[in-house]
Amino acid sequence: MKNKAITSRDVDFAKWYTDIVRCAKLAEYSNTKGCVILEPNGYAIWEKIQSVLDKMFKKTGHQNIYMPMLIPENLLKKEGELVEGFAPECAWVTVGGQNVLDERLAIRPTSETLFSDYYSLKVKSYRDLPKLYNQWCSVLRWEKETRPFLRTREFLWQEGHTVHATSEEAEAETLRMLNVYKEFFEKYLAIPVILGKKTEKEKFAGAEYTYTVEALMYNGVSLQSATSHYFGQKFAKAYGIKFLNKDNEWEYAYQTSWGCSTRMIGGLIMVHSDDNGLVLPPNIAPKQVVIVPIGEDENVKQLANKYLGLLTDANICAFIDDSNRSPGFKFAEHEVNGIPVRIEIGVRDLEKGEVTLARRDTREKTNVKADCDIVKTVKNLMQDIQDNLYDRALKRRNLLTYRTDDLKEVENIIKTKPGFIYAHWCGDEACELKMKEIGGIKSRCITDEQVHDGDKCVVCHKPAKYMVVWGTQY
Amino acid sequence: MKNKAITSRDVDFAKWYTDIVRCAKLAEYSNTKGCVILEPNGYAIWEKIQSVLDKMFKKTGHQNIYMPMLIPENLLKKEGELVEGFAPECAWVTVGGQNVLDERLAIRPTSETLFSDYYSLKVKSYRDLPKLYNQWCSVLRWEKETRPFLRTREFLWQEGHTVHATSEEAEAETLRMLNVYKEFFEKYLAIPVILGKKTEKEKFAGAEYTYTVEALMYNGVSLQSATSHYFGQKFAKAYGIKFLNKDNEWEYAYQTSWGCSTRMIGGLIMVHSDDNGLVLPPNIAPKQVVIVPIGEDENVKQLANKYLGLLTDANICAFIDDSNRSPGFKFAEHEVNGIPVRIEIGVRDLEKGEVTLARRDTREKTNVKADCDIVKTVKNLMQDIQDNLYDRALKRRNLLTYRTDDLKEVENIIKTKPGFIYAHWCGDEACELKMKEIGGIKSRCITDEQVHDGDKCVVCHKPAKYMVVWGTQY
Repeated sequence: MKNKAITSRDVDFAKWYTDIVRCAKLAEYSNTKGCVILEPNGYAIWEKIQSVLDKMFKKTGHQNIYMPMLIPENLLKKEGELVEGFAPECAWVTVGGQNVLDERLAIRPTSETLFSDYYSLKVKSYRDLPKLYNQWCSVLRWEKETRPFLRTREFLWQEGHTVHATSEEAEAETLRMLNVYKEFFEKYLAIPVILGKKTEKEKFAGAEYTYTVEALMYNGVSLQSATSHYFGQKFAKAYGIKFLNKDNEWEYAYQTSWGCSTRMIGGLIMVHSDDNGLVLPPNIAPKQVVIVPIGEDENVKQLANKYLGLLTDANICAFIDDSNRSPGFKFAEHEVNGIPVRIEIGVRDLEKGEVTLARRDTREKTNVKADCDIVKTVKNLMQDIQDNLYDRALKRRNLLTYRTDDLKEVENIIKTKPGFIYAHWCGDEACELKMKEIGGIKSRCITDEQVHDGDKCVVCHKPAKYMVVWGTQY
Repeated sequence: MKNKAITSRDVDFAKWYTDIVRCAKLAEYSNTKGCVILEPNGYAIWEKIQSVLDKMFKKTGHQNIYMPMLIPENLLKKEGELVEGFAPECAWVTVGGQNVLDERLAIRPTSETLFSDYYSLKVKSYRDLPKLYNQWCSVLRWEKETRPFLRTREFLWQEGHTVHATSEEAEAETLRMLNVYKEFFEKYLAIPVILGKKTEKEKFAGAEYTYTVEALMYNGVSLQSATSHYFGQKFAKAYGIKFLNKDNEWEYAYQTSWGCSTRMIGGLIMVHSDDNGLVLPPNIAPKQVVIVPIGEDENVKQLANKYLGLLTDANICAFIDDSNRSPGFKFAEHEVNGIPVRIEIGVRDLEKGEVTLARRDTREKTNVKADCDIVKTVKNLMQDIQDNLYDRALKRRNLLTYRTDDLKEVENIIKTKPGFIYAHWCGDEACELKMKEIGGIKSRCITDEQVHDGDKCVVCHKPAKYMVVWGTQY
């Protein structure tokens, strides 16, 4: 039985995606063009993501701060590459109160400029370093085509900005945060990811280099899911972040930044969900268990309440749905919303001393003893679901991962069944641009796979320098 | 011994305030005019406030959502009173990307318009009601004079927006949230507050009426600290929020909104802090206990670690300062930062089987047995500090609370020792404006105190309608 309000994923993936967003009540279009409203179900996922990541950031020594949302134009323009990259996408405030402003202000598209300006005031000695700050906020980029979670003009994110006394320390931070993201994607979002460096063409404007976290969606399209940048001294030189080092000499500081956004919710949808609605890994689901009492029986009610108490005490987020609607209606709704586990308590089952457990990932139902250790049972089931979702995603990714240095084959893959394509590259931007002509393929990242003598660039057949993962992208 | 970097509170209150903000590293001025940077110590207080209030909101059935930060001008202008109140203070985006926009967009000064527009889509039947939503975000108002936390162009806040099927239910919500704020101020911030209705002149633009939470600062100036508004059907009519009621008739819905902001941090400073720096109530302090081992002794270190483990396990936020600085330097810094409890562990004390506890509110030190139940001891001390701060603030407020219907006396109070002035009022705006000529006095709120025959308006001596609290304000 299939949810009729949802287009089939294999028939029209784009329509399926927007159907999920709508039917699971994650987000709604707004009358502010290009911006969406994050509804309770969608925002709750973001809250859960925030709470997990924030703990991981604090555990690695980071503190939160808050910078202004507006950036004076002259401040934005101090670092040339950054402004080239972002100025065309900025929204500009030109009127404040009743007056036209002398200098226009950009709504922050990202906050390197503000952090660097602040650090230039605060960093005077190696004793002031490192500063490991992060900010949770919204940013704005004037995108033309938008899609909920994947690309909207305004979106919520976190941006870490750190400053260090040595390049070694800053580079280590860049890698450390990349690995924090990896752990988060794998352990919580149940999304397998590949890590690597972006090419010069694809790196962040103003960075020395950019690490990226790349995930593959069900339809074989890639999603850049988080990034971690090493800036070297570029911003320090542009904004004057100088400190007295241990040798009592003035030196420019070394910086990093790293971020991820509500885009991850789009990734969650496109990796795990199905034709019956949202599927959420238990470790990131705001509501993990729904208990549905069937009928007006007193024993049924009592057991539902007992389960709720036990599960809540074990820090499992459970709730009872005793609303006045049919069981079938409730089951469908909780399925659409992606609640990982459903406990159905019916009179007849209970007479046999049993209750039913339904898992959202496979939609399988099993009967268990009503007097079982419900906390242990549910915990095991949730772990099973978490593992299964990861394995399923990994299998799908493996199915859609190719290795070829034959351009014809690349073309064929992209036309028929796109995915991650491992292919050698000589390092020339011209070849990267050539690849783009094939269905918009871009380099996802440079892997650290060793290149052997005789390996040739997939485009020009000159000796290869790198093994690159290629793919189409959101 | 006094902290020399901080101006005395009784000498220059305004300078004292900015000294506290700077020395406790709460906020820093930014190069975006009128906006400040919330530094780690300041932002951590906001995070703690958020976490407590958010739980209180959720416990009362509210859900979080996120609305766009930009409001198209035509949408903002649909409710006449609101736009009159806020349009003069808006920042306007007129350029997006490379193009001048057809319609300019305001950065949200508050979000009634967006919520109402959204509700007009989502509310069709009484079954869709109530909707109890809240949003944590930043808003922007083009203020001319700014002061950290008290008045800045951009500030962080929460805004609850609810919609109901009946006026009774909406009015009950308005009051319920007012009392949530009261509980929060008293139990967590240790700030005694008075509640009441704003006059017509002082109420929120677009509201039927506004409840307010008013607190008195150490210097006798009032701070409007939170507000809760009842809108009746005003916004529903302007934005078309209509639903089929239980009698199957179309009816306009009833709305409320309520909010509080980072301004509360300004209140915390001005109620509790002293000439040695910030003073924070333990219930809202991000860091509650600092353990300072003195000297390099192994037993000292062991005990510090043991205490840290015990306190952490008891959910008390403690940390060890084993930095390479003198004890005196550390004590002063943790005092400036307002850490409620300091445990000093020295070799000589420890030989006697003792450690020292220092409380930030009174700066008293006491010795306790090193092998005491440290969790219980610290918990009791924190409760003591929490209670003492509330009592101290209440005493100060009582000292600065006056009752008079004599205008000369009002004038004298404001000149010499300002505070809350209880005085009768006839209800005429003319008399309210007359009061304002006396050192800028404004009505803080209308109390529910009974008015007796013979009570006269403090200004015009005509029969009084209300007992009003008056005062100067931030």
